[in-house]
Amino acid sequence: MQADIITIGDEILIGQIIDTNSAWIAARLGEVGIPIRRKYSIGDRREEILDAVGGSMLHSELTIITGGLGPTKDDITKKVLAELFSSPLVRHEDTYNRVERMMAARGIEFNALNQSQALVPECCTVLTNHKGTAPGMWFEKDGRVVVSLPGVPFEMEALMSESVLPKLQEHFALEAVVHRTLITYGMAESMLAEHIASWEEALPSHIRLAYLPSPSQLRLRLSAYNVDRERAEQEIDKQFERLLPLLGDIFVGWEDETVQSAVAKMLIKRGETLSAAESCTGGTISAKFTAMSGASEYYWGGVVSYDNSVKENVLGVSRHNLDTYGAVSEQVARQMAEGVRRLCGTTYGIATTGIAGPTGGTPDKPVGTVWMAVATPTKTIAKVVQHGKIRAVNIERAATAAINLLRLELQKMDDEK
Amino acid sequence: MQADIITIGDEILIGQIIDTNSAWIAARLGEVGIPIRRKYSIGDRREEILDAVGGSMLHSELTIITGGLGPTKDDITKKVLAELFSSPLVRHEDTYNRVERMMAARGIEFNALNQSQALVPECCTVLTNHKGTAPGMWFEKDGRVVVSLPGVPFEMEALMSESVLPKLQEHFALEAVVHRTLITYGMAESMLAEHIASWEEALPSHIRLAYLPSPSQLRLRLSAYNVDRERAEQEIDKQFERLLPLLGDIFVGWEDETVQSAVAKMLIKRGETLSAAESCTGGTISAKFTAMSGASEYYWGGVVSYDNSVKENVLGVSRHNLDTYGAVSEQVARQMAEGVRRLCGTTYGIATTGIAGPTGGTPDKPVGTVWMAVATPTKTIAKVVQHGKIRAVNIERAATAAINLLRLELQKMDDEK
Repeated sequence: MQADIITIGDEILIGQIIDTNSAWIAARLGEVGIPIRRKYSIGDRREEILDAVGGSMLHSELTIITGGLGPTKDDITKKVLAELFSSPLVRHEDTYNRVERMMAARGIEFNALNQSQALVPECCTVLTNHKGTAPGMWFEKDGRVVVSLPGVPFEMEALMSESVLPKLQEHFALEAVVHRTLITYGMAESMLAEHIASWEEALPSHIRLAYLPSPSQLRLRLSAYNVDRERAEQEIDKQFERLLPLLGDIFVGWEDETVQSAVAKMLIKRGETLSAAESCTGGTISAKFTAMSGASEYYWGGVVSYDNSVKENVLGVSRHNLDTYGAVSEQVARQMAEGVRRLCGTTYGIATTGIAGPTGGTPDKPVGTVWMAVATPTKTIAKVVQHGKIRAVNIERAATAAINLLRLELQKMDDEK
Repeated sequence: MQADIITIGDEILIGQIIDTNSAWIAARLGEVGIPIRRKYSIGDRREEILDAVGGSMLHSELTIITGGLGPTKDDITKKVLAELFSSPLVRHEDTYNRVERMMAARGIEFNALNQSQALVPECCTVLTNHKGTAPGMWFEKDGRVVVSLPGVPFEMEALMSESVLPKLQEHFALEAVVHRTLITYGMAESMLAEHIASWEEALPSHIRLAYLPSPSQLRLRLSAYNVDRERAEQEIDKQFERLLPLLGDIFVGWEDETVQSAVAKMLIKRGETLSAAESCTGGTISAKFTAMSGASEYYWGGVVSYDNSVKENVLGVSRHNLDTYGAVSEQVARQMAEGVRRLCGTTYGIATTGIAGPTGGTPDKPVGTVWMAVATPTKTIAKVVQHGKIRAVNIERAATAAINLLRLELQKMDDEK
């Protein structure tokens, strides 16, 4: 059992809009145990639609199509599906009445274009769209299922959740698939792969490992197919349990955890607060914490001390240190972290100062050099990292590395208890 | 002449990440006049890759592949391409040396996995990836071109711009296309389209207009196809000249201009400086300015005053105003802008305070309410905006709206001179 997803529409094909529908559909199908064979994007052209849908039906038991169902001339999906299934377009009375009511409520004329939304191929089962005019359509032929849905994301999502997924589970009597994702930070993919090679080789054949890199974290996903859900969950848990001792403090958490959300959880649990003093990261650390709803519980704010005068006058960094060691130095990073902690009255202060690039590097301190510090009630720790030459990447990596320095410190305190 | 785009990788296929690469590539190919026939997403499986790439080569002169080039076992694209083109994997010395240097600079061991990044099918032309380890590869066979690129967006984008697009223009002797893009901020697409309808109708038939929406700006692109480059550039300039008076202050600039880069240019020209006090935008305004190289010339820093204690103790917002009007109020926004301007000693101060959501709204101040202010040497102005319910969108929009408030004020001063 496998599925294809086809998005129809010139806007997606030519790159004017980014397709988010197919990722959403793939994730939902994955959750009910239907693997995706292929996703396509094609334009509003008859031959392309016939070729893609017909080709998909040769390989996959299920084809889900989105888009191309609008009332205007360029939307031809319905007409082409009628042709493909050799079934005439007929008026669907419930849809006709629903669209008529919808137009009346919006004060829009119920003209021929809108009336055409109620035409569907005679052979299909109509799936009622409560959020828009274009109905969903369910086709069956030679053991294959083809589902056509509107491209408007919230209409498509409602139809999938309310109609399509329940019908699929019933129609295909689906088996279980289980995924679980573990988040790591601090070791490159190639090193980690080598480090855990013997663990990976010992995985049973029905459990698969995937490395999922993202800009600042590395995710490891285990998937078990065609097995009893409960047993699979236990097996995956057992495998990850064996992995954890190999990971040590590069283990951050599970599923959607990030370095900053892990820190947030620890701070909330401890009833403690944080502030940040940022030079080269320029507000990115603050933005990462405040992007999470509920940040006000532990994140009080911070200072972006981009200019040295702000480091000196607002954070209390000494002119002596700035002159002697330079703005990018351990001494200044420490004073920044201590300064923002004192200024904001928080439990911890975190600081970064570095050379984001592409200019400003020196032989001693090349582009990508970042000093970071964490001030706690009892001590201040500092660390230097050396990243690359690309400004945006340096900023992103330095921000996460500084937050991770605090994460390690909090974890150490927890371990010592 | 047409092209297919294939993204390889289970992450995109199963919907764990959203594919933005194929939209970017499609847009770039469209700009040089290559229409897209079809986009595919497939998983890291040999049969699928052979079938998709082979199938694409039957229909399209050009196939662009992204992803599946990582050093770990699940990434098999290179091996399958070697098989498809019947060409053995050999070590590419330049790449080997480049990756070795890259690993050394990052302090990462140059192990067998990383060394394997330098293996490429013998028949391909290597495209140097200056931003990552996986090289780009250019294949030619039976008049078809297949290009394989890494899936990391900034690596792919650099390779496309620096290597692939110039090579395509040469290889396929593409006709000239001239594009010029005008940036606007502050008017919705449907309103703008109505506002400039008569200008659009008067465009000559060989010049085409496209609306390119992005989260916080609306771009208008004029394109001229199959024409003499110099004449086309002059014609497009003339058309835009006629448009500018209709746009007034929603005109921000040309090509890659943003609201913040326009402000940066004006501040540098005037020799003036800026700081920001951010509550609901939590560092995003600072991050937008400091993301631009050279920000230290005019951007001195700021305060993220997420907690009221920071508003009061660091920025000098009065307890009376916080208690009487609330943190999200005109009075507090004004005091924040004036406070950060004074604290940092800059020419201007900019401030935001609002309810980013999803919780925290009240009947008076629903989620999405944001007060913003700009303090200048002579006065302080304030404005309230009302956005939607989604936290990330509210933060992004409020940050840009606040920066735009300063842009309009700077422009007014310029106009009055």
